Amino acid sequence: MPLFEHYLFICTNERDGSAARPSCLPRGSKKLKSDFKDAIKEAGLKHRVRANESGCLDQCEHGPVVVVYPEAVWYGNVQIGDVEEIVREHLVKGKPVERRRLPESCINSDRCPHRK
Amino acid sequence: MPLFEHYLFICTNERDGSAARPSCLPRGSKKLKSDFKDAIKEAGLKHRVRANESGCLDQCEHGPVVVVYPEAVWYGNVQIGDVEEIVREHLVKGKPVERRRLPESCINSDRCPHRK
Repeated sequence: MPLFEHYLFICTNERDGSAARPSCLPRGSKKLKSDFKDAIKEAGLKHRVRANESGCLDQCEHGPVVVVYPEAVWYGNVQIGDVEEIVREHLVKGKPVERRRLPESCINSDRCPHRK
Repeated sequence: MPLFEHYLFICTNERDGSAARPSCLPRGSKKLKSDFKDAIKEAGLKHRVRANESGCLDQCEHGPVVVVYPEAVWYGNVQIGDVEEIVREHLVKGKPVERRRLPESCINSDRCPHRK
């Protein structure tokens, strides 16, 4: 088997309801992970692409958040309906799905305009 | 702030004690994560490198397991005493710590000789 060609980390962090920042799990990221797993298998990419749960990726205002490595493409507000397109366009054809990409100005930035 | 230069995913998965495969959490990976966080901060790499918890990375026989992206360097059997060296040599100087690297033949492979 080859090494992984792509590795998806899907945030499944859950914060306390009283926390100042939101979190990804209550927005459905567990189901997102299992749908990615199924879609990857269906596309014949099992053993070449892995969908992995991760702890907080710290882009909480944009959840559910998914980051794809090694290319470090960050997706935000990923919905169940986006899974098939991300697998087909990005993981099979190599073209990230631009409409779900996080802008660079939002990633790893205290100045992200979506943070309160 | 720049985008992340390195992203460490540290497996904190915990399996049931009766599971066939071992898991990383009981081998101390939570402490590993907090030590990486501290060492990264101390090296002045905060906001450039992130140490992140992850779900099962599926290299369970080699735990605690850490993968560093975007370079996809896999470390196994990572101990508290290795943290400072990995930060200094790999994350600061760009030289992975070879003695803790997983051999390619063990990564993503059912034929890994360490699997039962």
